[in-house]
Amino acid sequence: RNYSIALIPGDGIGVDVIREGKKVLDTACEIDGGISIQYEQFDWSCEYYLKHGKMMPDNGLEILKNFDSIYLGAVGYPGVPDHVSLWGLLLPIRRQFQQYINIRPVKLLRGIKSPLANRGVEDLDFIVIRENNEGEYSSIGGRMYEGTNMDMAIQNSVFTRHGVERVLRYAFNLANQQGKRKRLTAATKSNGINHTMPFWDEYVQKINKEFPDVKTDIIHIDALCAFFVTKPDVFDVVVASNLFGDILTDLGAAIIGGLGIAPSANINPEKKFPSMFEPVHGSAPDIAGKGIANPTAAIWCASMMLEHFGENKLAKAIMEALQDVLEEGRIVTPDLGGNATTEEFGEQVCRRLREN
Amino acid sequence: RNYSIALIPGDGIGVDVIREGKKVLDTACEIDGGISIQYEQFDWSCEYYLKHGKMMPDNGLEILKNFDSIYLGAVGYPGVPDHVSLWGLLLPIRRQFQQYINIRPVKLLRGIKSPLANRGVEDLDFIVIRENNEGEYSSIGGRMYEGTNMDMAIQNSVFTRHGVERVLRYAFNLANQQGKRKRLTAATKSNGINHTMPFWDEYVQKINKEFPDVKTDIIHIDALCAFFVTKPDVFDVVVASNLFGDILTDLGAAIIGGLGIAPSANINPEKKFPSMFEPVHGSAPDIAGKGIANPTAAIWCASMMLEHFGENKLAKAIMEALQDVLEEGRIVTPDLGGNATTEEFGEQVCRRLREN
Ligand SMILES: CC(C)[C@H](C(=O)O)[C@@H](O)C(=O)O
Ligand SMILES: CC(C)[C@H](C(=O)O)[C@@H](O)C(=O)O
Repeated sequence: RNYSIALIPGDGIGVDVIREGKKVLDTACEIDGGISIQYEQFDWSCEYYLKHGKMMPDNGLEILKNFDSIYLGAVGYPGVPDHVSLWGLLLPIRRQFQQYINIRPVKLLRGIKSPLANRGVEDLDFIVIRENNEGEYSSIGGRMYEGTNMDMAIQNSVFTRHGVERVLRYAFNLANQQGKRKRLTAATKSNGINHTMPFWDEYVQKINKEFPDVKTDIIHIDALCAFFVTKPDVFDVVVASNLFGDILTDLGAAIIGGLGIAPSANINPEKKFPSMFEPVHGSAPDIAGKGIANPTAAIWCASMMLEHFGENKLAKAIMEALQDVLEEGRIVTPDLGGNATTEEFGEQVCRRLREN
Repeated sequence: RNYSIALIPGDGIGVDVIREGKKVLDTACEIDGGISIQYEQFDWSCEYYLKHGKMMPDNGLEILKNFDSIYLGAVGYPGVPDHVSLWGLLLPIRRQFQQYINIRPVKLLRGIKSPLANRGVEDLDFIVIRENNEGEYSSIGGRMYEGTNMDMAIQNSVFTRHGVERVLRYAFNLANQQGKRKRLTAATKSNGINHTMPFWDEYVQKINKEFPDVKTDIIHIDALCAFFVTKPDVFDVVVASNLFGDILTDLGAAIIGGLGIAPSANINPEKKFPSMFEPVHGSAPDIAGKGIANPTAAIWCASMMLEHFGENKLAKAIMEALQDVLEEGRIVTPDLGGNATTEEFGEQVCRRLREN
């Protein structure tokens, strides 16, 4: 049981949280005994971009291809436009490695308080599957008549049968096998967006036929966002396009206690290419370098990575240790109202992992 | 002071709530004395569609053009695809009458409890200005290779200088004049959507120069949705594209107590064409015909309509009466935990309006 991981801490707090995530992984290996992980670290980031005019070397994807997985912090830096930094690193990795499934649990951890009144761990426990390769992030489009009164920009959303079927099949399968209620909620907006979204709805209905035990709701994204707040307890598995999944999962992060908490796994289910694990949060330039970011999301990502490797026992042990520390409430980062550092929190999770 | 209103109750609970809204308008006229309103009612709806194969007559827009405003309930009906019903009525009205501003207050009314823990009326009080004519609802696009493995659909988002500048200018102006903190938050997604959204951001920065006193934040839609939950108290005026505004305002409705509450005004600021007032909620087929829908949103819309006419005193009186009834908590519709009917609630607001 030998795994290779490419570490890309990236920018800002990405560096802080990945450091702690790695410690937790090391501790997991140490207590297990039978596992070993090789790391290689890459400094690809906006800082790298400012030096080299690109986010990663030209053969960056070639290099990453040989790893079992990628553990990424965050990219983004004031002064480097987001669409430059992301289309130069994060989005090509997701796309080239066919990480077409983005798994984002919306699960309230023990010890965390939801900002929703009277909602506890039993109310907030579902999974969002986000399409991660196509849809609204097509990069197709452009601008015309720049500098004149007629200046305009057009962007294409692209939905393909291939792209839509594979994510829906994955989500239906998940609802069928692991869903508590065998219920799939599909986000749409076919009332306002009248080509791609009716197309999406049609395939939801079609793939549903392959999973007759799964009950499906097709809900408009606007209403669905409202329901995440007003009745989060009804969801089981939610499936959404790239943009809608993005929106739902930041909202999901908010209701489970904030962006410091929420993890994300960019999965290539065929394991033909490495999968990538990254917190939902960004590089948070406002607190970068202060060592106070909450590494919970990064540690949760480490657990998801081990689960992806099939190391379910260790994955679970990490989540238990993490939740024990959160529940204990002694070492608390500022985002959750305490004054612990990123490092103190990470080390406490390692300690707990050894003790448990 | 003579106004003409086209009533389009539409489908489902639209019919119930507009009936009460009209009663409140009538009561306002009665107590004022100097105002009179002419109504004409139209049965354009999905039911009309099932009979006539269209949502409204061919000269529908011609007919509506002569009114001072349109008071619409909701359209939508099981069996009639949403993109048919909406592109046949609601969206053409918004577009042909250049109702390019959609005003949606996210304001917690007295007497309503937010689902957000520990948030009261002072925390939830801002306005979302939604672009209402173009953007992601372009209707441009199509499908190719249907019935084959290569089946695909494409939809274009279209952002024009004309369309973007006018909504931004309206929002900046509002933040400048009425904003408590002269703060404008612009929703974007320029990190993932790399043509139209950087275009939008560029114009936000450009129009900001015309309003140097307004402080602007440009925030990605995913994070912004999260902030609506985690720090709703920081907002003043929020401006967003058509789709993002749609999403933010349903979420906004959720945090101010649900879809039964939230109003929306589709404004043609030049008053060259009628403006349209409609609740954010839909036709709610599940409770249609039961007479239990909450008419709060529709009544709030009636108040916004009077405000648009310049009848600020009456507009305010309606909001006070409405909040008095909500705060009193004797007549409460099922969505808020009571068992009053739509009619009982509407009549109580009228009674209160007369008493106040
Ligand atoms: C019904 C639908 C087309 C509409 C929209 O998305 O504009 C509605 O959700 C709204 O918010 O007014
Ligand atoms: C940084 C951005 C491009 C990215 C996305 O929208 O996919 C992020 O928000 C996420 O959710 O992973």
